Amino acid sequence: MTVIQQVSVNRMKIIMFLPLLLLVCSVSADQTETAGHQSCPQDFHAALRELTASLAVQNERITVLQTENQVLSNQGAIEQQTEIDQLKLQSKVTQVAFSASLLDQGEGDTGPFNDHTTLVFKHVVTNIGNAYNKNTGIFTAPVRGAYHFDWKVLGRDSTHTGAYLFRNEEIIFLAYESQSSGWPSASNGASLLLEVGDQVTVRLWAGSRTYDNENHQTTFSGHLIFTM
Amino acid sequence: MTVIQQVSVNRMKIIMFLPLLLLVCSVSADQTETAGHQSCPQDFHAALRELTASLAVQNERITVLQTENQVLSNQGAIEQQTEIDQLKLQSKVTQVAFSASLLDQGEGDTGPFNDHTTLVFKHVVTNIGNAYNKNTGIFTAPVRGAYHFDWKVLGRDSTHTGAYLFRNEEIIFLAYESQSSGWPSASNGASLLLEVGDQVTVRLWAGSRTYDNENHQTTFSGHLIFTM
Amino acid sequence: MTVIQQVSVNRMKIIMFLPLLLLVCSVSADQTETAGHQSCPQDFHAALRELTASLAVQNERITVLQTENQVLSNQGAIEQQTEIDQLKLQSKVTQVAFSASLLDQGEGDTGPFNDHTTLVFKHVVTNIGNAYNKNTGIFTAPVRGAYHFDWKVLGRDSTHTGAYLFRNEEIIFLAYESQSSGWPSASNGASLLLEVGDQVTVRLWAGSRTYDNENHQTTFSGHLIFTM
Repeated sequence: MTVIQQVSVNRMKIIMFLPLLLLVCSVSADQTETAGHQSCPQDFHAALRELTASLAVQNERITVLQTENQVLSNQGAIEQQTEIDQLKLQSKVTQVAFSASLLDQGEGDTGPFNDHTTLVFKHVVTNIGNAYNKNTGIFTAPVRGAYHFDWKVLGRDSTHTGAYLFRNEEIIFLAYESQSSGWPSASNGASLLLEVGDQVTVRLWAGSRTYDNENHQTTFSGHLIFTM
Repeated sequence: MTVIQQVSVNRMKIIMFLPLLLLVCSVSADQTETAGHQSCPQDFHAALRELTASLAVQNERITVLQTENQVLSNQGAIEQQTEIDQLKLQSKVTQVAFSASLLDQGEGDTGPFNDHTTLVFKHVVTNIGNAYNKNTGIFTAPVRGAYHFDWKVLGRDSTHTGAYLFRNEEIIFLAYESQSSGWPSASNGASLLLEVGDQVTVRLWAGSRTYDNENHQTTFSGHLIFTM
Repeated sequence: MTVIQQVSVNRMKIIMFLPLLLLVCSVSADQTETAGHQSCPQDFHAALRELTASLAVQNERITVLQTENQVLSNQGAIEQQTEIDQLKLQSKVTQVAFSASLLDQGEGDTGPFNDHTTLVFKHVVTNIGNAYNKNTGIFTAPVRGAYHFDWKVLGRDSTHTGAYLFRNEEIIFLAYESQSSGWPSASNGASLLLEVGDQVTVRLWAGSRTYDNENHQTTFSGHLIFTM
């Protein structure tokens, strides 16, 4: 904004010339022709010079205003519009949030498997931004940013249950619990910096199993906290 | 911004007319009256025409500037201000976050009840935006948007404990755990799209009970992630 | 924007004076000198008065434009830029998010301790904004705002495990579970309003212990939801 401010300061330096021209040329009909002709042309002459000077001053003022408007429209409004658009865009792309539970219908166990296996959460409650794929169980980051995830697993008549959060092929955290008997539950949360295309999955601990039914107890949620 | 740009381009087309008027009318006192009177009126005539033309050009330039300012203030600044205000408003209304635990004082069990029953979390730690009502246990969405919720229940010497998250009368997820003996705990999280006025509650699983004391172990938290 | 609007309205009141000066002074060579001299000075006189009046009108229009530009640049663009900068700053400083688990390498128990003791989560997965200190286990709020925290503890062959969330020296919530045998897990979440410099820690319940290994099961996460 320094250019605009400079223009404003320059404007203050302009002589505020007010062309209050007093035409002193008094041509009265009863004057002698000679007297009238001798004095008036000189008065007109001075008046014309004064008008011309006033025009020059006004012209300079208009030019300053043109420069100011150029600054206001180019350096000001257009740059500001760009910034506003970026802020609006940033606000729009931050709309990523999902929540899903394991079973879309019925009830039963999933697992055990020999390896840590991606759980495909089929009952989608929320999927703003469509970053979670209910056919694969994979969440794919649509923008670079910080994301928060929560997940919970429940075991039925199980000595233990557990599920990892993976970022691509990297273990982040494990939610785990074991009991001598009963229905163990474990949940955990994590905030991750994801690059565009990074994939986040919940994988069932090898050898354990998890249960779900119409109460939606084994879950996976996530949302974008902010873009980076 | 196309209107402003168009005005700027038009401005470039204006002939930068500088009224450097040269008043060639030289009235010298030693000239013969006749000669002076014959030449000067014609010079004045030309000078007046030139001044008039300059005034017309300046007038056009001022009119262009007026149009530009109209554009700058109406199409530019006012629209931008509207966008800025919306962004500020959006930033303001996203200030919704609460956290509460079950008991405001003392310790003890809540439940069991015959039906799934709304838990009224009376110890309010945070209630920015006043969307959570500690007298009813109901969170009411003040704006359309994506919200995140966490809740946790603890059972004392209980074979099981469980609590649902409800959006209005719809079951979202259940946090549940059972044990042969001990103090089971279960927690869960969910991200939900809520319309204005949607109500979110945590309801105790029918037949189970939950415990709380001055350590604040049975809890309900939520916050607005973004408006939509 | 009321000042700009007022100026616009005032502008409409200005008489759109177009100085279409008609110089009626016709000095023809074949006129008698006397007639020419008698009529022309009066015509010039009128023309000069008209030009002067036009200049005054234009001058007024230019002054109005200067005031408008002053308003546009000062009250408009500069204030808007301030608002845009604040929005951008607000967007920037909201970048606080961390996640850490207890052990950076190896496996084993932490605790029991005689007092509630701050857990130092050494394996840092995320620390955007560097508000979490892995040498002390302390999260220090860099800006006033609402923050969300999650934490989870796991016990190994333990009758119970528990961990508090503290804001400075105030107990917020406890994550706790006990079992007759097994590996109990407990997690909880909370949203807190923090002042700049407020410290948040996870403290192990006196007398209990928590376990961690390369699966990262005992964890502490947090992020800024919005500034205030």
